[in-house]
Amino acid sequence: MTDHANEIRERTLGVLLFPDFELLDVCGPLQMFGNMHGAVGIATVAEQAGPVASRQGVALRAEHTLAACPALDMLLVPGGWGTRKEVENRALRDWLVARAATAEIVMSVCTGAALLARAGLLDGRRATSNKANFQWVTTQGPAVEWVKEARWVEDGKVVTSSGVSAGIDMALAVIARVAGDQIATTLADAAEYEWHRDAGWDPYARRWGLVA
Amino acid sequence: MTDHANEIRERTLGVLLFPDFELLDVCGPLQMFGNMHGAVGIATVAEQAGPVASRQGVALRAEHTLAACPALDMLLVPGGWGTRKEVENRALRDWLVARAATAEIVMSVCTGAALLARAGLLDGRRATSNKANFQWVTTQGPAVEWVKEARWVEDGKVVTSSGVSAGIDMALAVIARVAGDQIATTLADAAEYEWHRDAGWDPYARRWGLVA
Repeated sequence: MTDHANEIRERTLGVLLFPDFELLDVCGPLQMFGNMHGAVGIATVAEQAGPVASRQGVALRAEHTLAACPALDMLLVPGGWGTRKEVENRALRDWLVARAATAEIVMSVCTGAALLARAGLLDGRRATSNKANFQWVTTQGPAVEWVKEARWVEDGKVVTSSGVSAGIDMALAVIARVAGDQIATTLADAAEYEWHRDAGWDPYARRWGLVA
Repeated sequence: MTDHANEIRERTLGVLLFPDFELLDVCGPLQMFGNMHGAVGIATVAEQAGPVASRQGVALRAEHTLAACPALDMLLVPGGWGTRKEVENRALRDWLVARAATAEIVMSVCTGAALLARAGLLDGRRATSNKANFQWVTTQGPAVEWVKEARWVEDGKVVTSSGVSAGIDMALAVIARVAGDQIATTLADAAEYEWHRDAGWDPYARRWGLVA
């Protein structure tokens, strides 16, 4: 166990929302980050402030517009069907580039990696994504070193996870990195969540025929 | 595999919200139910319509007041710190009793079981709850047969789950019950979620000292 207690400071986590985002891509990680009271503040952001409907029908409220969003230490980009449209959104891609430049950590869940890829933020980096839609995602970033079999991939400040629930495991790994393993373990246990600690654990790569 | 295809009909799932509910208690199950497009419609409900803040800070919007809520086939009651206050809420308890009487399935996640217990809905039934707060929850229902070691417990129409992430496993079990195992498996795989199919799987009962 590493004691990172002296390194803990308040960070702002920006969570990007767009129509038809995948609900658990956002709320899985936020269950963990949101329980780091005093250590992480959450800022939801979208092109327009107000309610943004998930693919599952329930809406989350974006507090900030892209332009008025506060400075971000960490950034979380979810996936979902909405990414098919948002990869063409130039204003959103420009915002991602600008915010990633100053962030300490940039995360994606599921097909959120397609948005990072189209913004050029994964070029020359190792990254992963949802396995059922892997083919489409990889076409969004030909200069990316796509990893087929991974629960999540860390490459410097950029951390990309596989589909939906993989975001929870990635979030815990990032929390372990910034706040120490003990805090991450406590958060997982409090949620009675069986954390997959092995970033290489990925039965879905085989299930979707990406590896033999 | 059982084919329940002929039994699938559109059901309305009511999701109770109150201040300081636990985010994943709601959004874990809704990730699964919300992807049963055409088979399940979601109705969020609270004492007052509008945004309701989770313990983790992010708000979900309640579409309906208790009084104006449509007829519900299924009901989901989350847990969280807010339950400490809501167990004293007579109007809410009366609403739970009335809605449970006509619902096909009543579910709780985590300390949501305390609300069902105080409403008398678990009397004489087997039920479980979050393990870290098990002692407090059980004091809310002295006539309940509390099960210490269980991921979730089904007793007729009432299905109670253990803490936070256990709600996802319970939701998949309920989906398997109403729509068939194949649909539940497909939903879990699509979310790259390693479904705990064994209702008796519960390492947290031991971790919190409830069993030897």
